[in-house]
Amino acid sequence: MVFTNEKDYLGYLESLAGLPEGFRAAAAETSFFPKERPVEKPLPLRLALVLLDKPSAAFGALFTRNRFPGAPVLIGRERLKEGAVRGVLINNKISNVCAPRGVEDAEEVLGALAEPLGLRANAFFPASTGIIGWSLPVKEMKGALPGLCAGLHRGSCLDAARAIMTTDAYPKVHSVPVGEGRILGFAKGAGMIEPNLATMLVFLLTDIDIGQEALRQSLSRAAERTFNCMSVDSDQSTSDTVIALSSGTKPSVAPEVFEAALEEVCAKLAHSIVRNGEGVSHVMRLSVSGAKSFAEARDLAKAVVNSPLVKTAVYGNDPNVGRIVSAIGDWAGNSGIEMNGKNLLVRLGEETIFENGAFALEAAKEKLLSAYLQDAAMDPQNKKFPPHEKCVDIFVQMKDGDASAVVYGADLSREYVTENADYRS
Amino acid sequence: MVFTNEKDYLGYLESLAGLPEGFRAAAAETSFFPKERPVEKPLPLRLALVLLDKPSAAFGALFTRNRFPGAPVLIGRERLKEGAVRGVLINNKISNVCAPRGVEDAEEVLGALAEPLGLRANAFFPASTGIIGWSLPVKEMKGALPGLCAGLHRGSCLDAARAIMTTDAYPKVHSVPVGEGRILGFAKGAGMIEPNLATMLVFLLTDIDIGQEALRQSLSRAAERTFNCMSVDSDQSTSDTVIALSSGTKPSVAPEVFEAALEEVCAKLAHSIVRNGEGVSHVMRLSVSGAKSFAEARDLAKAVVNSPLVKTAVYGNDPNVGRIVSAIGDWAGNSGIEMNGKNLLVRLGEETIFENGAFALEAAKEKLLSAYLQDAAMDPQNKKFPPHEKCVDIFVQMKDGDASAVVYGADLSREYVTENADYRS
Repeated sequence: MVFTNEKDYLGYLESLAGLPEGFRAAAAETSFFPKERPVEKPLPLRLALVLLDKPSAAFGALFTRNRFPGAPVLIGRERLKEGAVRGVLINNKISNVCAPRGVEDAEEVLGALAEPLGLRANAFFPASTGIIGWSLPVKEMKGALPGLCAGLHRGSCLDAARAIMTTDAYPKVHSVPVGEGRILGFAKGAGMIEPNLATMLVFLLTDIDIGQEALRQSLSRAAERTFNCMSVDSDQSTSDTVIALSSGTKPSVAPEVFEAALEEVCAKLAHSIVRNGEGVSHVMRLSVSGAKSFAEARDLAKAVVNSPLVKTAVYGNDPNVGRIVSAIGDWAGNSGIEMNGKNLLVRLGEETIFENGAFALEAAKEKLLSAYLQDAAMDPQNKKFPPHEKCVDIFVQMKDGDASAVVYGADLSREYVTENADYRS
Repeated sequence: MVFTNEKDYLGYLESLAGLPEGFRAAAAETSFFPKERPVEKPLPLRLALVLLDKPSAAFGALFTRNRFPGAPVLIGRERLKEGAVRGVLINNKISNVCAPRGVEDAEEVLGALAEPLGLRANAFFPASTGIIGWSLPVKEMKGALPGLCAGLHRGSCLDAARAIMTTDAYPKVHSVPVGEGRILGFAKGAGMIEPNLATMLVFLLTDIDIGQEALRQSLSRAAERTFNCMSVDSDQSTSDTVIALSSGTKPSVAPEVFEAALEEVCAKLAHSIVRNGEGVSHVMRLSVSGAKSFAEARDLAKAVVNSPLVKTAVYGNDPNVGRIVSAIGDWAGNSGIEMNGKNLLVRLGEETIFENGAFALEAAKEKLLSAYLQDAAMDPQNKKFPPHEKCVDIFVQMKDGDASAVVYGADLSREYVTENADYRS
């Protein structure tokens, strides 16, 4: 889908964002003075709530592998052991990671949310994104809860998807119909997006009836092929979280049908997250085939999309293709993997750039490749909506096996640096 | 050493750059039209030559682990089996990596250099840096050789150190006296500098008498603690090379004395390479202690200095210290290494930012840290000489063992992106 203005794009998202049966959602804003930093004006913090009509045992979650996870991740891992949950409370601005009393603070806020509903804190997953190390403004968050709950509605999740944004330029929403119901997903994530779920928060809501174990297995496999196959800047955050909830109000479908639909939603969200990454002007799609294993194919692809020299060349529309081959060789050397250049073929778009152990370059081809890169560029300073869905396609073909992987990555722009050099100001 | 202008800095380098006894050096320039890219004007290419007065068996070399090494690396590995060599021919602009006939081209140029001296090509190491994938302009290089040889002199290596620069802003030269002689080193390297020797060319010349095996062992150990403990942008190039040559005209010294002097020269060159990295405005020094092994300490330190989010925060003088701890946790999680936050202490400069499993942040401390980062900044657009030798010191203390490592890294600036987005233009 291509949009020429933000309004049309938001209208399109609204059409995708309708809540499945059995769910309500809401968003609200508050503000606070952090104790960790002098500020002149209070900082805004937004809250989003997803509430199931009834407690559900059909829920699952995946979390970052970072060894210093945020309090919401620590709590979320415990919640997986609960018999049933009612929903998720999400905040932006502060990720509540390794702050003193971080777990207690999060539980206190959830307790205040649960009490009027006759529930306890353990009925809710917490999810937080934003600055690491700071403490949650508990008092201000609790003060905003009555207004948040008063705003619960059965419309779309677009307000919630907007509320959880940090440096995201636009909300990420996708949905697909399945059986008599649907799967809706919304997400945030901008920088810091790598494999293994980086500061990425993803919420998947469905009304399709499904067992807990089936949901968790499908979620795990779908994430492996989507969220774990993308990278904006190779950093894996302390807070990455994917949560799936089912209200179970619609008839079940065949497991493979459900999983295919779930993977489709996850894949679209993953693509949106990369395309909307901080300062991204090109989305790269690395397709590796002929590898010994999926893991090897994926790791090779990630090494290329994470190479700063590849990323900056693509940003500059400069077909400096030597850097692609160098990144492959660097990865293989550091991984102790033997690799014969004679068995390697590399294409950029339609053009073969390396085969039979040598580069295949000439002036005419360079012009074509420059034009190809330019055509796939977006203006990284002005993207309240994606101007197109073009990718810079890089194909790497080996002859070592029959495994393959597709990884989405991003270029590295001046705007990325600017945004991250002054994220908190 | 601090310099307020380029002239004083070059004067200082000149004072360090005197060739040891038994060596001559020269530099020359030529130009060419590449066949791989349309250009309006011929591109400049510089040559540098280091020539021993007599063939020497006391030589050694280390090369990149990249699986697609340049032709000079392939040839250099063979040269290590020669009984003796006479010198090194270096060029910039084209790295001669995976170009069709790359090895033949390099050997042809070396043969043309060797013939008038009554030698064969195998008397010389080749070394090339620059664009990957392009072919050497053999005819133009051969045409420049008579002038190059005519310029051989016994003065300083500063002209050679300048000739081999690519995006380097200033030449890198260091030397230390040892026994009755000295060890002189000169290097190039700007972006793409990581562990395992990235597009870094280093030449170490000494007149101290030393055996081949002793020289090679000392070189390997010194490089492990210096060139392999630095990172500008995590890319390891196809061409990284360190070559050491001894003329043996001065009496030998104790092995440990020689190795200490060699490591000192390597350490100073490594620091210079990072400080002069593409678009670098802060040099980071990561000191890890209490680790189980040197490799673990070094890998943790590299994970922090290579994190784009840490690098951009330091560039922005933003003490967003959560990103440091997140990078440590990310590395540990991905490496399968258990880590207890209670046993971790992290300091930025003099300030403790994390201990006992939680951040230790407050507004007053943040102001101090901002000022600390600002004080260590250099203007990345104007650095024909290093304005100071200050580092951003990050200390990571664990309680898992008694191994430690010190790694030098660089921030990530808008200037880095600009330079690498358009390196070839």
